Amino acid sequence: MSAKKPLNIGVVGYGFMGRTHANAFSQVGHFFDLQHRPVLKAVCGRDRAKIDAFADQWGYESAETDWRKLVDRKDIDVIDIASPNDTHFEIAIAAAKAGKMVMCEKPLGRNASESEAMTKAVEVAGVANMVWYNYRRVPAVTMAKQIVASGRLGKIFHYRAQFLQDWTISADLPQGGAGLWRLDAGVAGSGVTGDLLAHCIDTAMWLNGGIDCVSGMTETFIKERQHVLTGKKEKVGIDDASAFLARFGNGSLGLFEATRYARGHKALYTLEINGEHASIAWDLHDLHRLSFFDHKDEGPLRGWRSVHITDGDHPYMKHWWVPGLQIGYEHTFIHQVADFIKGLESGKPAAPTFRDALATDRVTDAVLASAASRKWEDVSEG
Amino acid sequence: MSAKKPLNIGVVGYGFMGRTHANAFSQVGHFFDLQHRPVLKAVCGRDRAKIDAFADQWGYESAETDWRKLVDRKDIDVIDIASPNDTHFEIAIAAAKAGKMVMCEKPLGRNASESEAMTKAVEVAGVANMVWYNYRRVPAVTMAKQIVASGRLGKIFHYRAQFLQDWTISADLPQGGAGLWRLDAGVAGSGVTGDLLAHCIDTAMWLNGGIDCVSGMTETFIKERQHVLTGKKEKVGIDDASAFLARFGNGSLGLFEATRYARGHKALYTLEINGEHASIAWDLHDLHRLSFFDHKDEGPLRGWRSVHITDGDHPYMKHWWVPGLQIGYEHTFIHQVADFIKGLESGKPAAPTFRDALATDRVTDAVLASAASRKWEDVSEG
Amino acid sequence: MSAKKPLNIGVVGYGFMGRTHANAFSQVGHFFDLQHRPVLKAVCGRDRAKIDAFADQWGYESAETDWRKLVDRKDIDVIDIASPNDTHFEIAIAAAKAGKMVMCEKPLGRNASESEAMTKAVEVAGVANMVWYNYRRVPAVTMAKQIVASGRLGKIFHYRAQFLQDWTISADLPQGGAGLWRLDAGVAGSGVTGDLLAHCIDTAMWLNGGIDCVSGMTETFIKERQHVLTGKKEKVGIDDASAFLARFGNGSLGLFEATRYARGHKALYTLEINGEHASIAWDLHDLHRLSFFDHKDEGPLRGWRSVHITDGDHPYMKHWWVPGLQIGYEHTFIHQVADFIKGLESGKPAAPTFRDALATDRVTDAVLASAASRKWEDVSEG
Amino acid sequence: MSAKKPLNIGVVGYGFMGRTHANAFSQVGHFFDLQHRPVLKAVCGRDRAKIDAFADQWGYESAETDWRKLVDRKDIDVIDIASPNDTHFEIAIAAAKAGKMVMCEKPLGRNASESEAMTKAVEVAGVANMVWYNYRRVPAVTMAKQIVASGRLGKIFHYRAQFLQDWTISADLPQGGAGLWRLDAGVAGSGVTGDLLAHCIDTAMWLNGGIDCVSGMTETFIKERQHVLTGKKEKVGIDDASAFLARFGNGSLGLFEATRYARGHKALYTLEINGEHASIAWDLHDLHRLSFFDHKDEGPLRGWRSVHITDGDHPYMKHWWVPGLQIGYEHTFIHQVADFIKGLESGKPAAPTFRDALATDRVTDAVLASAASRKWEDVSEG
Repeated sequence: MSAKKPLNIGVVGYGFMGRTHANAFSQVGHFFDLQHRPVLKAVCGRDRAKIDAFADQWGYESAETDWRKLVDRKDIDVIDIASPNDTHFEIAIAAAKAGKMVMCEKPLGRNASESEAMTKAVEVAGVANMVWYNYRRVPAVTMAKQIVASGRLGKIFHYRAQFLQDWTISADLPQGGAGLWRLDAGVAGSGVTGDLLAHCIDTAMWLNGGIDCVSGMTETFIKERQHVLTGKKEKVGIDDASAFLARFGNGSLGLFEATRYARGHKALYTLEINGEHASIAWDLHDLHRLSFFDHKDEGPLRGWRSVHITDGDHPYMKHWWVPGLQIGYEHTFIHQVADFIKGLESGKPAAPTFRDALATDRVTDAVLASAASRKWEDVSEG
Repeated sequence: MSAKKPLNIGVVGYGFMGRTHANAFSQVGHFFDLQHRPVLKAVCGRDRAKIDAFADQWGYESAETDWRKLVDRKDIDVIDIASPNDTHFEIAIAAAKAGKMVMCEKPLGRNASESEAMTKAVEVAGVANMVWYNYRRVPAVTMAKQIVASGRLGKIFHYRAQFLQDWTISADLPQGGAGLWRLDAGVAGSGVTGDLLAHCIDTAMWLNGGIDCVSGMTETFIKERQHVLTGKKEKVGIDDASAFLARFGNGSLGLFEATRYARGHKALYTLEINGEHASIAWDLHDLHRLSFFDHKDEGPLRGWRSVHITDGDHPYMKHWWVPGLQIGYEHTFIHQVADFIKGLESGKPAAPTFRDALATDRVTDAVLASAASRKWEDVSEG
Repeated sequence: MSAKKPLNIGVVGYGFMGRTHANAFSQVGHFFDLQHRPVLKAVCGRDRAKIDAFADQWGYESAETDWRKLVDRKDIDVIDIASPNDTHFEIAIAAAKAGKMVMCEKPLGRNASESEAMTKAVEVAGVANMVWYNYRRVPAVTMAKQIVASGRLGKIFHYRAQFLQDWTISADLPQGGAGLWRLDAGVAGSGVTGDLLAHCIDTAMWLNGGIDCVSGMTETFIKERQHVLTGKKEKVGIDDASAFLARFGNGSLGLFEATRYARGHKALYTLEINGEHASIAWDLHDLHRLSFFDHKDEGPLRGWRSVHITDGDHPYMKHWWVPGLQIGYEHTFIHQVADFIKGLESGKPAAPTFRDALATDRVTDAVLASAASRKWEDVSEG
Repeated sequence: MSAKKPLNIGVVGYGFMGRTHANAFSQVGHFFDLQHRPVLKAVCGRDRAKIDAFADQWGYESAETDWRKLVDRKDIDVIDIASPNDTHFEIAIAAAKAGKMVMCEKPLGRNASESEAMTKAVEVAGVANMVWYNYRRVPAVTMAKQIVASGRLGKIFHYRAQFLQDWTISADLPQGGAGLWRLDAGVAGSGVTGDLLAHCIDTAMWLNGGIDCVSGMTETFIKERQHVLTGKKEKVGIDDASAFLARFGNGSLGLFEATRYARGHKALYTLEINGEHASIAWDLHDLHRLSFFDHKDEGPLRGWRSVHITDGDHPYMKHWWVPGLQIGYEHTFIHQVADFIKGLESGKPAAPTFRDALATDRVTDAVLASAASRKWEDVSEG
C-alpha cells in the first residue's frame, strides 16, 4: 500500500538491545517522514523456540539461528548487530564482505585492535555503517551539540562526565551467561570502561573534540564471582570502576568516571561543559532537562536555566507530542534509525560511524593502559 | 502467525489524540503479554486524502470518512473516540447501541448531562467502556495510588493539584478550527475546567475519594479572539483559568487550579497529598520522579525522597527497559490499552469507566456553577 | 569611641522573636554603614530571673519586668514589641502616646479593629512605626520586588502563595502557655490565618497590589487540646488550615493556603507570580534561590533560571560575604533594622508601616468572614 | 556583669576572613552557653586609619599595626591569624613561642614544609591550636560525619569532591594586592590547590580517612596578568584549575577537582560518598540540604532523601531558630569558636588542629608533585 521503499533489516540478537533495535525499526515510520520503510525481515538467535517467539512478538517475517545464514541472505540490506561484544568482530566483518550495510551495538570491538579491523572492513567494502551510541540522540544532548557548535560557549575550559550505577554491589551476583555477560571479561572485553565510559567518551569527543592523553585508575572491588557457565568461583577480569583525567586537543581538561558501585544511582550519566561565556549540564535521570548558564544574561538575573527540551523547535521533538510531554530512552534509538536512513537518502552518512567508534576505543585502551602503568598515556592516533 | 486473539479496533480521529491511540494499540503487544492482539482495523476522519495517508502511516487496514459507517461495521469490536469533545456524545451512544465496546477521550461529555446519557447508554448496552484519563497510568502516579491504598499516609488532611500551561497568552491566537477547537466553547464545552482541571479531578478522586462541595473562580483574560471558521472577532466563551477550593468526603481540604496563562509552564500537572504520617508529590514535567516523605523515617534523616520510578518493581516498568531508563507520555496510553484488555480477559473492567468520568464532570459542572453564583456549591450526586 | 548617634532601643519580649530582634539590633552596625547605632538599652519580660539572664546574654544595659515602666523611660527612643499577639494593642498605643517610635511584631493586632486603633495612635502621635513582616527582606524576595517594579513581567495573571508547616499534627500537643500561645485563639487572635497567611498576604500586596475580594475555607482538624494553663481539654479556637481564592485589584487571580498539617514541610513559604512576559517563583526552604522565567529568552533555550541571590549586586548582599555564600533567616531582621534606620535618616519611612499591616489584617478578616459565610466577601476599605 | 570567664582574643587581619572571625567571636556567646566569653581585645593591620575604623565597627578594645606587638601583649590569650597565607608561618611560630593559643586560617602554610614547622611549634609549646577549615561545621556536613561514623554506609567505594568557581575567567583581572593576593603565587603558595582543593581534602580525610597516593593535573589558563603592585604584566604562578585521582587508605577511590574557570558556579563545593549500603551528597550552594540514599529503605520507595538540616536534633541547629529556618556561611565560624572553647573547657581539643591541617598540605603537595611528574605520587607520611 505504501509508496515508501523497503529497507530490509536483519538483526542479530533479541536481548535488551535486540528489543530496543526492533522497536526503533518498528516505530520510525510512525513518527518520521522518510522515503524508506524499514522492514523487519529477519531476526537471529541461537535458541529456536525463543527466537521464534520473539519474531512473532515483534512482527519479524522470519527467524534464523545462525548469523552466517542471515549474512548470506539476499533479501537483507542491513545487518544490525545487537548481540554481546565478543560477537561484533566476526559478524561485522562478514557482513561487510557480503556487501551489507552494518549497524553495530557499542562498543564496536572489545578493544581498538578489533575495532580497527572492523572499520577497515566496512570502509574497504564501501558499505554504510553506524554504531549505536544512542545517547547522542537524546534531544537535550543533541541540543547541547547545537549550542557548542554555535560557538556561544567560547573557549572551553572543562569537560566532566560520569556514568554511575549500583547494580553489581552484591558479591552474590554471578558473572557470565545470558544476562550477566557484561561481568565476564572474555565476552565484554572490559568492565565499565567499555560499557559506560565508552558512552561518556563518545559524547565528549562529539561535543568537545579529540582527547590527547589520559591518566586512568581502575578497580575491581569484588575479586571473585561464581561463573554462571562453569558454576565455579572465578577471578573477575573486568573493572568495576574506572576514572580518568584527560587533556583534550582544544586545551580543556577532562574528568571522567564510571562505576557500578555508586549506591543510589541507577543509570546516572551526567555531563557538564564549562566555557568562557557559558556552560551546559545534563543528566540521563532527567533526560529532558538541559541546564544552561549564559554569562551574557543580565547580571543580577544570571542563573542556570533548566530548559525542558520538549518544544517543537527542540531537536527531534516536533515528531512527537506537544510541549511539556516527554519521550523516553527508546526514542534515542528511533532517532538513530531515522538519521541513518536520512543519511542513506542524502548521501551524507550519519554519525557515529565505525571510524568514530574506533576513536572511542582508542581512548578506552589508553585509560586501561594508564591504569596499569600508573602514568599518563597518549591516545593512539591509529 | 500469532496465537493471540484479534481485538478489532475502529478509531474516530487522527489528530493529536488519534496518534496517541494508534500508537497505543500498535505498541501494546510488543511489551505486554496479553491473550488479545489489537488490530488496527479502521480509522475515521472526514478528509479522505488525510485519513488515507494517516491510515497508511500507521498501518490501519482501512479508512472511513463517516463515523456512522464505522459504527455499523461488523468487523469492529471496539469504537475508540479520539475526536473533539462535541462529537463524543453522539458517537458513544450510537456505538453502545450497536453493541460495540466504547473507549472515549476525556472529558466524557461537554457537561455532566451529556455524560450521564452516555454512561446510561453503555451500561444499558452492557458493553465494556473506558475513558482516556491517561495520567492515572504514569508509573509514578500509579505508585502513588498504591501508597495511598496501603494506608500508610494515615488520615488525609490536604490534596492539591495544578495544571499550568502558557500556550494561549497571545491575543493573536485565534479560536476554533482543527488545532484550536479547545478555545471554542461550542466544541469544547468549557476551557481549562474540562480540559485540564478534569485530569486533576479524575486523579484526585481516584486517590482521595469523592468531593462534596466546591467554591470556584474562573476568568477569561482575552475576551475576544478571531474565529478560524468565521474569520471574525468573536467573544471567547471558554474559561482561560479556573481554580477551586474543595472539601472531600474524607474530611480533607482540596485546592485545585488550571490555567493556560502561567508563563513558563508547558504542561505542569502537579499533585500533592499530605497525610498524618506521610506525604506524596508529583509533577508531569519530571514524570518519573515521585516525591515521598515518611514521618516514620528516623528523625534527623527524615526528608523528601525523590524516587525515580523506573525499577522493575515499580508499576508497569518491568515491561520496559532497565532501572534508570525512562519512558514518556505516550506510554500512559499503552498502559491503558493493556489494562483495558486485561479487564476484558479477567472480567474485572479497568477504570476509569464512563461512570467514573461522569463523576468528574459533575465536579467540573459544580465548579462552573460556583464561579457564577459566587458561593459554595454541592457536587450533584446524580 | 564611635561617632555614630545612639538610637536607644527598648524591647518587650525575649522569646523566639525577642532573640531575632536582639540579634538584629546587635548586628546591624557590623554590616551596615549607618549614622545611628542601636543601643540595647532595656529588655522587658515578666520573669525577673529569666529577663536578667537574657539581658546578660545579649548585652542589654538593663531589664524591666513591667512594660509600662519601659514605655515611661526617658532614655528609650524606640519601643519594639516582640511579645505575643494579645499584648500588641495596649503596648503600641501606650508607646505612641508616650511619643516613642514603635516597632511591632506581626500580625499587628489580633484583628483589623485592633490594628486600626493602633495605626491611628501612631499616626496621631506622628511617630515612626514599622511591623516586622521580615520576609520582604529576604534578598531573593526583595529582588522579586525589583523585577516586578521594573515592569518586565507585563500584565499579571496569577499570584500563588503557600505557607506549609507540620508541627501541630500530633493530637497530644497542648495549647497555650509560653511556647504554644499560637494555638490559643484568645492570645493569637486566629490560627494560621494570622500567623502564616498574614506573611503571604503582606508580600503579595507588596508585590502585586491590593486584594478586592476573597473566598475562604478554614478547618480545625484537632477539635480539642489540653490547655497548658488550665490543664484541661479545651475546645481549639484557632484554624489549623486556611485557604482562599482572591481577586486582585489589577485583575489577576490569587490562590493562598496556609496549614500546620502538611506533613513533610517545616516552614515552606512559597510564592509564584505569572505575568504576560515573565514569571517568578521562590520558596523559603531554599531562600537564596529565585526562579525566574523570561519569555524573551531565545526560544529553544528558554527555561526557568535558578538565580542564586548571593552576588554583590543582589539586594543587601554586598553587606555580607562573597558570591555563593549564604546568609539565613535572622538576616531579614537585620535588614529591616537597617532600613528602618535609613528611613529615619532620609525622612522616607521604611515599609511596612502600621498602615500597611492594617491592610493585611483587613484581608485576613475577610478570609475568616468568608469561611463562615461560605460566599465571596469584599475586603473592607477601612 | 557576666559570670563568664573572659577569653582575650587578638586577631591579625581585617579583610574577608578578619570579618568572619570578628563576627564569630562576637556572636558565639549569644547562641552558645559556654563558660568563657571571647573578648575582642585587639585587632591588627598595617594601615592605622583602616584598622582603627574596623576596630570601632566591631567593638575591638584596641588596634595594633604590628603583629609582633600583638603577640607580645600580656593581655591576649589567643592569637588568631586571618591574614594572607605568606604571613601564617612567622606569626604562628612567634605566637606559639610566646605561649599563646593559636588559631590560623587555612591553608596552614604555603606548603607542607612550612606547616610542619608550625605544627612542631605549637606542639612543642603545648598551646591549643586550630585551623579554620570551617566547612566541617556546616550542620549538614557535620551530619554527614555522624552518619559515616555510625557505620551505616558500610564499606566505602567512592569519594568525590569539587570546588567550582568562575571569578577569575576574565584576562583583565590583575594579580596581587589586597583583594587579589590569591592569584599571586608568592603570597598564596599555590592557586586553587591550596585555596579550594584544601577544603575538599580536609573534609574528605575527616569523613573517609587518609589518602595514600594521587595522580594530579593542573592548568594555568591565563598565563600572564598585570600585577597590582608592580603595574606590569607578569607570569601567573598559580594553578587556575587542579584535579586529581586518589586512593584512600580504606580502599575507596577518590576524584577531586577545583577550578576558578567553571562558568556559572560561584562557590560550588560539592561532595559525595558512595558506600555499600548508603550514600551521601551535599553542596555548599544549598548548604542546608543533605542528600541521603539508604538501600535499606523498602524497595519500591527507595530514593535520595533531601534532608533539610534545620531541626533541633540536627548538629548545631538547636542553638538557632526553628525547623525550616536557615543559617548561613558565617555560622560555620561561630560553630568553630564554640567548639574551640568547649575543647578548652573539656580538655578534649577540637579539630582540625595544626597537625590535621598539615596532613592536608601533604596531600596538596603530592598533587602538585604529580602534576609535574605526570605519574602517581605517594602522599608523604611526614
